[in-house]
This record gives sequence, structure tokens and C-alpha cells, in this order.
Amino acid sequence: MDNPHLVVTCIVGDGEAETGPTATAWHGYKYIDPAESGAVLPIVHVNGFKISERTVYGCMDDKELICLFSGYGYQVRIVSDLERIDQDMAASMEWALAEISRIQNAARSGNPIVKPRWPVLILRTPKGWSGPKKLHGEFIEGSFRSHQVPLPEAKTSKEELQALQDWLRSYAHYELIATKGGEGVVEGAPSKELLSIVPDKRDKKLGCRKESYAAFKPIEVPEWTRLVVQKGSQASCMKVVGTLLRDTIKANPTTFRIFSPDELVSNKLDAVFDVTGRNLQWDVASRAQGGRVIEILSEHTCQGMLQGYTLTGRTALFPSYEAFLGIVHTMMVQYSKFTKMAHETGWRHDVGSVNYLETSTWTRQEHNGFSHQNPSFIGAVLNLKPALARVYLPPDANCFLSTVAHCLRAKNYVNLMVGSKQPTPVWLSPEEADMHCIAGASIWRFASVDEGVNPDVVLVGIGVEVTFEVIAAAALLRKLAPTLRVRVINVTDLMILGPHGSHPHALSNDDFDTLFTKDKDIIINYHGYPIEVKGLLFGRPGLKASNGRSDLDRVTIEGYREEGTTTSPFDMMLCNHTSRYHVAAAAIRAGAFFNPKVSTEAQAKSAYIMHMAAKDKEYIYAHGKGE
Amino acid sequence: MDNPHLVVTCIVGDGEAETGPTATAWHGYKYIDPAESGAVLPIVHVNGFKISERTVYGCMDDKELICLFSGYGYQVRIVSDLERIDQDMAASMEWALAEISRIQNAARSGNPIVKPRWPVLILRTPKGWSGPKKLHGEFIEGSFRSHQVPLPEAKTSKEELQALQDWLRSYAHYELIATKGGEGVVEGAPSKELLSIVPDKRDKKLGCRKESYAAFKPIEVPEWTRLVVQKGSQASCMKVVGTLLRDTIKANPTTFRIFSPDELVSNKLDAVFDVTGRNLQWDVASRAQGGRVIEILSEHTCQGMLQGYTLTGRTALFPSYEAFLGIVHTMMVQYSKFTKMAHETGWRHDVGSVNYLETSTWTRQEHNGFSHQNPSFIGAVLNLKPALARVYLPPDANCFLSTVAHCLRAKNYVNLMVGSKQPTPVWLSPEEADMHCIAGASIWRFASVDEGVNPDVVLVGIGVEVTFEVIAAAALLRKLAPTLRVRVINVTDLMILGPHGSHPHALSNDDFDTLFTKDKDIIINYHGYPIEVKGLLFGRPGLKASNGRSDLDRVTIEGYREEGTTTSPFDMMLCNHTSRYHVAAAAIRAGAFFNPKVSTEAQAKSAYIMHMAAKDKEYIYAHGKGE
Repeated sequence: MDNPHLVVTCIVGDGEAETGPTATAWHGYKYIDPAESGAVLPIVHVNGFKISERTVYGCMDDKELICLFSGYGYQVRIVSDLERIDQDMAASMEWALAEISRIQNAARSGNPIVKPRWPVLILRTPKGWSGPKKLHGEFIEGSFRSHQVPLPEAKTSKEELQALQDWLRSYAHYELIATKGGEGVVEGAPSKELLSIVPDKRDKKLGCRKESYAAFKPIEVPEWTRLVVQKGSQASCMKVVGTLLRDTIKANPTTFRIFSPDELVSNKLDAVFDVTGRNLQWDVASRAQGGRVIEILSEHTCQGMLQGYTLTGRTALFPSYEAFLGIVHTMMVQYSKFTKMAHETGWRHDVGSVNYLETSTWTRQEHNGFSHQNPSFIGAVLNLKPALARVYLPPDANCFLSTVAHCLRAKNYVNLMVGSKQPTPVWLSPEEADMHCIAGASIWRFASVDEGVNPDVVLVGIGVEVTFEVIAAAALLRKLAPTLRVRVINVTDLMILGPHGSHPHALSNDDFDTLFTKDKDIIINYHGYPIEVKGLLFGRPGLKASNGRSDLDRVTIEGYREEGTTTSPFDMMLCNHTSRYHVAAAAIRAGAFFNPKVSTEAQAKSAYIMHMAAKDKEYIYAHGKGE
Repeated sequence: MDNPHLVVTCIVGDGEAETGPTATAWHGYKYIDPAESGAVLPIVHVNGFKISERTVYGCMDDKELICLFSGYGYQVRIVSDLERIDQDMAASMEWALAEISRIQNAARSGNPIVKPRWPVLILRTPKGWSGPKKLHGEFIEGSFRSHQVPLPEAKTSKEELQALQDWLRSYAHYELIATKGGEGVVEGAPSKELLSIVPDKRDKKLGCRKESYAAFKPIEVPEWTRLVVQKGSQASCMKVVGTLLRDTIKANPTTFRIFSPDELVSNKLDAVFDVTGRNLQWDVASRAQGGRVIEILSEHTCQGMLQGYTLTGRTALFPSYEAFLGIVHTMMVQYSKFTKMAHETGWRHDVGSVNYLETSTWTRQEHNGFSHQNPSFIGAVLNLKPALARVYLPPDANCFLSTVAHCLRAKNYVNLMVGSKQPTPVWLSPEEADMHCIAGASIWRFASVDEGVNPDVVLVGIGVEVTFEVIAAAALLRKLAPTLRVRVINVTDLMILGPHGSHPHALSNDDFDTLFTKDKDIIINYHGYPIEVKGLLFGRPGLKASNGRSDLDRVTIEGYREEGTTTSPFDMMLCNHTSRYHVAAAAIRAGAFFNPKVSTEAQAKSAYIMHMAAKDKEYIYAHGKGE
């Protein structure tokens, strides 16, 4: 994409072709505008076997395969002349490249072909072709037995060693090696004839294409502070982020793209459509117009395109409903493994970060319900190497702007941003948001008693809606338990929590204590699964409760506990124990250990608070709505 | 499957059809033997739009769709006569059912059709058809705007309320309601005509089919103790489990199936092929022979088939390479959400458990390497509701037999079993294995000093290979630090670790202390990501270090840390810090706090041990093999 003069061939095995992600990826061409992008020439290698079973494509005859790929929208050419396979392949490649040129020339000369039929080659050769034919009376070539190690005993068996020698010698490698030196030829090195087909220019050599290792150019990220919203107002984080993305597209017309499973409008990021369109070439309304947005309802295809685009030097964003990014969990992990190894390889250069934006979270499922509640992608990123993993849960629109701008600029990470698309309070001014995001977490003095000085208890929100409940709990406590000294903290960068040294962002012990105190109870209201924060905090010193109590932790964590249905946002908080009532009741119980005035009434008041929670629940189920 | 007289229709939206899992699922029919199984009649509903973008199928014309589905192997019939859609659909359904009968009759009379072309209906109607046509001058019907709430302001806007009334009245519901009472008719109830089409027999009524809610019959699980191996020998857990599966298939010829992404032989479970075959109807070698095994290289299709088979009352197993079960992470979570809600629903009966068997784990990747190292599926199961989640890591072949037998018998769970396919030591006799699996964890006295009495340090293995390293560490310590008193524990049921009450299997505080001691350091060697065990242990009382040290935890946990390549098994242990050397060095450091004899030499000895680790690493990289 956006490399109009590049043609890439790609060999797809018939085993791999059975996977779902590959089966729908064939439709990907419907999103490629031949005027602005290059081409991929797929070569489907049908050898008939997987590890030990026949393949689906291997059981399909030519008619079936031609029919299937014609239906996908391709021109199919079968390459299967085993007697003259090199000639067959060469002729087929020439035909395919000519077809690609024809499609591209038409589009680039202003006469684009409607629904252009891109070429695909189907190569039928026996599995393990040109390897050992038979071993111990059983077929190797043309059978699944050639999938793994065809001659496993070559080290000890004379028969197998001979078969190995015959096999390797059959490639006539000796013909390719210079047997004596001469002008420009070194004895034992590749022959003159062989060297003559190596391109002169370094970047034309196979494997030396700059696109594959050194293409990264940072994009120009617009100044986010121009787009901020008023502190004290209400704003949808996504609406505001949409304006930043709109300006990013304007500033980077050929180096930034958005891939989404048709959720851009639903996720309220549609400001981007002020300056660009959707790149669906099969649709009469959008064909031949380019477009920075690809919306296909395949998270796998989105992820695949995102990876390819990022690894060839550009920058991309993948916005998604929170519940559905888990679909590409293993693809993301594989990508992170690739980048880890790439960073350990001297000649590989930087790449942009892979950027995920999760919204439409479990907290707001009044339309979709239980099936759309799954914050597990956070855990997937937490398991990556610390050098790569970044997880942000910005608490308001200004923090979100700052975070997105940072992530689009940052290199080499897997950035996950989680937040809300509904209007929510803007807690921080742009300057405060900037400071807060730099720190990763801070005491929110405006929500704390006495600006958070000398607290009896520390309340922590991590995530938009659960932080809202923490602040509501603090307000409730001001009325119900005015002597309780409450400190309110928001964590926007999840990675600050782990023990010092476990992650580049992890707070030092002193910084941690300064924020969270040395001895007071910490009540954490977390957006994700509680086990994640438990795992992060494990090993932090000083988390045991003091004050004569048993050696239980002084930290309690609530979060999504797989409870939910199609219900009101506040009911979601109630059933997952993240409501203001749950936070307030826990705060009173915890504060009672340090504050004798709170202590005398703690039991009664926390019981009263949970009574209010029960009443609210009743109201919601009776009226079908409600706080 | 195995319900030969059942025909199920299934409506697939054109949005959903874009997803990878659906795109390959169309090949599923190639694995259905019409002699033994019923049929699904898919109805692809092409209405052209997703939430806000056109669909891929919606942009394809009839020729393209017919071509694609013919390629998939179907007979296609387009249903699109909007003027007479009911008649068109009725005629099409009759045709489809007749085609299904033709295919089934042929197969059941001994003359099976080669590559039978099952019917598919493609229904083309406008999106939001028969809903409001237009609103505020914009099209609703035939546009993406009908996807969500087409009349969002009907509560407050007169115009929208009127549109809502017109819409609902257009269905002429009043014609279906009895306006006055009479013989067998109640006023206001459905009319006589309407009631006359309701089937008399309860289980013929739509939604009352027993297959969908009350079909579960436990399978007959063979006695695993007949298949055990000799304590002290070496055995591949999977080879042994294969014999149990073989006998399970024999005992349950129509109610047990195995779904696998072509990994049964590679995972050494091939004993099942002594009694059954692979059910691939497109392959001339296996067609028309049934077969209890379906091997398609689509984890999504395996999971979909597994869910359908289990939810209709039967029992199934999904063996997989460990790294690739994460591909179906979100499908498994959706399934668990369904079963949670089903259990909260009075009329739903039990279903079998969903059984996963993970092998070919990260610990043994001398052929495949880094890309095949991903134990994250454990974490996916840990996040489920405790009532459902079960994770087992049986340490040897006898324990594995006991565990598989238990899981195949158990109802309503998501069972995950993780283990090795390579030959490994059989540590326990059948009786000991039985006791160990019932307990979930126990002290392995044979590997402990003085049978584990009064230890200085507790070493814990969770998983086959990491437990092997723990036992090797204990042996090493016997030589190097003979005065150190070591207790060795294996945990086979991961769920025992959480705080009491967090899971039905979680140990009580007393039981936990009895096993793991009240005060000694616990060195855990874990198969998965360490954060999981940290999260589980968080909140357990009594885990802080005593003996005058800082209040750090007395637990240290090592596990897979995303380090690896195509290397020797022992190098995998070294680079993930789970080797015997790492365990032994940690044990000496920890034991030094309690044992003054160990203390005086602790620093020197642990340094010496890590020196041995470095030497081993050098050897492995110099010789390409090792330990």
C-alpha cells in the first residue's frame, strides 16, 4: 500500500490456506486502489498435504479451485507442468506481471477497470518434490512424510545417508561453483554465470530491498494542544481523538492509514471522513478514489494489513471494540516476537509502533450486552517483553489526546489505548493532562480530602468509568463520613505499577510509596481483569497491611469479573463490584483502622452504603434505566 | 453430526461472512459424511451493509457469489424476488431439502455421491427491509442507518413516533390476534389459524427441540487404570493418552469426536487411528467411511464444531499445539459466556465439558522455535468464572491418564490440560497418581530431603518439564549443599493456588500452609507466564518473608518470559530462568536465611551453580545440542 511501484510475490501453502484468516484475506484486493498502491502476486502452492492429513485445496480439482478463486475475484492460472516447471512458472510470472501492469496503467491513466481481476498463480507440485522418493518401502515424495525430517536417521543409517547424498547431489550444486580461479572468479565461490544474475545495485538484490528493513519515517503528528477541550465540560474521548486523527491524515496523506472492522463511525471517530474516505474498490460509490480508511469485518485482515504497513515503514492505527481485539491476540504476539528478534538483529532499523485503540468497552453495553464484554487484550499486551509493551487507560479527553499523539510518535512499541466513546467529564486542563500523562499516575487533589494530604485511605481509578465511580465515591464519603481523609489517584499508564525494574515505566519504591503511601489501604477500581493488577503488584515491597491486622495485603482490587448483560452502565458497575458504593464501603472499612472517628461508625455506614447499592439495583431492574 | 435425521437452517449475515472463521467454515461440509450425520442449510443473508460500510458480499454480483460458493462446493440458489419473497423462499427451501435428502439417501443406500454439492441459499433483500423507508430526508431502509436504532427519538419526537406506529402496523399483527372469544379461542390471544400451524408434539415446536437443551448423555469413559505405565520408566504422556482416547472411541462410537488442526499424529495421539479414521469426504481415500476425527487446519472451525457437538449433548476433545489455542481465545470466552447464562436459565440442562489438550509446548521447540512458544491460553481460562475454569498440568503419564479420564467425565466445565508429548519420567505409580490428582498438589517425598520434613526451602514444579528441573535441582543440591533441607512439591491442578474461596478447588489457608509451610521461601517453577501465578497467589495470607528480612514476598516465580528460539530443550530452560541451576541457586539463597550451615557458603555456592549454567549454555551453542 502506498508503494505504487512495488510488486511482491507471496507463497501461500495449501495448509495455511485452510485457516480462516487466509480464507478471507483473498478479499483484501477489493480494498486496494491500483492508482495509489502496488501489487501482491499470490502463488498458492498446492502440494496436497499438511503435517499428516490431506489439505482441502489438495482434494479440490482444477475446476473447483478456478471456480473458488474466480469467485474471490481473481484471474487464475494453474502452474503444473512438472516436466517443464521452470518454463511454466516463468511464462506464468510474465503473464501475471503484465496483468498487474495492465490494471495499474489503466487506473493511473484515469481509466480504471471496474472490479479488476488481479492474477493468482496456483502451483501444483508433489509434496517434497525432488526430495527422496521412497524410504524403507514407503513413499516420501508426494506424501505427508516429507513434511518434517524426511531422513531422520541420516547420522547413523548408511541407507539414509546415501539417500541424503543422492538427494543433495541431484541439485547439481557443483555446476554452480567455480572449479578453478580466474579473472574475477575465486575457486570454490559461485561461478561467473551464477554471479552474473545478481543485480549490481545493492537495493535491487533479493533481501536487500529497503522497504523491508529501513523504510521507517516518522509521521508528522499534529500538535494535540490545539484540539483540547475545556476542563469541567463533558466530552467524548473518541470524538476528540477523531479530530486529531483527521489532522494526522491531512498532514500525512500517504504514510498513515486506519484499519478497522467497520467500527469507525460507531466508535465516534468519524471526523476522519471530513478529509478522506473508505478505500473499497468493489463499491461503485467509493471506487478509484483512494482513501486512508479500510473497514473490513475481519480483525485478522486488519491486523495483517496493519503489520505489513507498519513493517514497511509507515504508521497505522487499529481502532476496535474492546471485546474483539482478542481475536488477533496470537497474531499480535507473533508480531511482537518478530520485532523482538528484529531488534536483536544488527541490520534491522526502527519501525513505527503498532497502535491499538479500544473503545466501546464492557462498561457501556446498554445495547450489545455480555457478548461484547471482554477486556482480555490488556493481559495479552502485559505478557509481551517489557521493552515492547505499553498499556494506557487515559481518564478523559485531554489525556487521551496527549496519549494518542505520543503513541503515533513512539517507535517500536505495541501501544494499547483503552477508553470511552461516550461523553464523560473532562477532569484535567491541557497542562494538567500533559503532566499527568508524563507521570503515568498522580494524586487528583481536587477529588481528595485536604488535597490528599495525610490520607486514611487511598482510592485508585484505572480506566474512565471506574475512575468516575472512584470520584463519586469520594464525594459520597465527604457527606457520609466527613472525617475520613481520602486520597484519590488516577493511573493512566498501567505499566507504572509493577515492581521497580520490571518495566521501563515501573515506579521506584520511593515514588510508589509517595503516591500510594507506606501503610494505608489502597482500594483499586480497575477497568480490566483484577488478576492483571494483582500480578503486576506482586513482588512490590510494603504492600502488607499494618496496624495489627493479619498479614493480608493492604490492597484490594475490583474490576471486570465476567458479570454483565444488556443493562445500564451503572448496573454494570454494581454487578462487577466497581460502583461508587462498593468503593465507598471498602474505603470506610479500610479507613476505620487508622481513623478512630470513622471506626466507631464504620460498620453501620458501610452497611448503609451497600443498602443504597441494593436500592439502586432494584430501581434499575424496575425501570429499565438508571444510575 | 451424528444426528442423521436433523436438518438445521442457519442464517449467516453478509457482515459476519467477512470474518476469517466464517470464510473457511464453508469448507466444513467436506468433513460431513451424509450417511452418519444430518445437514445444515445455510442461508446467506446479503443485505449489503454492516454497521456503516458496504459489505464485501454486498458489492459482489450474483455471478461472483455463485462462482465463489460453487468453488466452495455448493449448489447455489439466489432468493431475491422481493415481490413474492415468501413464495420464493418456500420454493427454495423445498428444493434445498430435496437436495439434502437426495445426498443423504444416496449415502445411506450404499451409493454415496462423490463430492456431493450441498445446497446453499443466498437471500438478497434490502437492509432494514419493511422498516421505516426514510427519516428526516435520509434513507433508512436499504442503508446502513437501519443497523442500530432506526428511530432513536420515538419517545419524544411526534414524527418518529408516527413512523414507528406505521412501521409496526404494517405487519398487520391485528390479523393474527383473535378479536373475540369462541370455542378454543381466547380474545386477545393468537388466532385459531395461527395456532393451527403450531406442532402438536412439544419437541417438534420451534425452540423446543431436545437437541438444543437436554440432549446430554455422559459418555462411557474406559477405566484408565488398565492403561497405566510403570513407575520409574519413561513414557510419553500423549502416547499413553492416545490409548485412552482409542478406547473411548471404541466405547462411544457415535457420541465422542476429536477435532484437531491436523496435529494428532504430530502430538503422538495416533493410537486413535487403530480404531477410526479421518472424516474427510473430499479425499478419495477416506470418503464414505465416517470417522471420529476431523483434522482441518482451522482452529476456528475445530472450535465451532466442538461447540456445536458439545452443546447438542455429546463429548469432544480439541488437541492442539500449545501456541495455537490462543487463536480461539475469544470464541472460547464467548462459549463460556453462553454456558454461564445457560446455567442461570432454569430450563437448560447440563452439557459436557469443553476439553482442550495442549501439547508440543514452548519447552520443546528444537524444530519449530520462537513462533511456537505461547502458553497464553492458560491465562484465558483463568479469567473465566471460577465455576467453569479448570486448568491441569499433569506431571507424568499416569497423572495425565487420570486427568483426561476425569475431564471426559466432568460436566459443564472448560477443561484445559497441558503436557508433554516426549518421553518423560513416570514419577508416580497409578495409585500415587490417583491420590496426587485428587489432591491437586502434594509433597513429593522421594525427591525431598528427609521426605520433606521440616524443610529450609520449598521447591514447586507446575508443568512437566519445569518439574523435571525442580527434581534435578533437588538432586544437585543433595550433592552441593547436603545440609539444605529441601521439600519438593508438584502442583497438577493450578486452581488450588488462589486464596481460599476464590475457586472451588482453592486450598484452605491451613492446607496451603501444611503444604507450602508457614514461613519458608517458596521457589516456583511454572510452565506459563509468571504473572498468572502471581495473580493467583495475591491475597493469600502469610506469603511475606519473615526472619528479619524486608517485607518482600517469600515467593519467587519463574516461568516462560518470551525468550526462546529454535534451540535445545535445556537451553529453553536456561534462557527462561527455569533451569535446575536457577532453581538450585535460588534455593540456596533462600535456605541460607533458615539454615546457618547453608548460610556460610550460600553466596559462593549459588555463584558456582550459575557458573555451571553459563558453561552449559556455552556448550549448547558450541555443539548445537545439549543436556
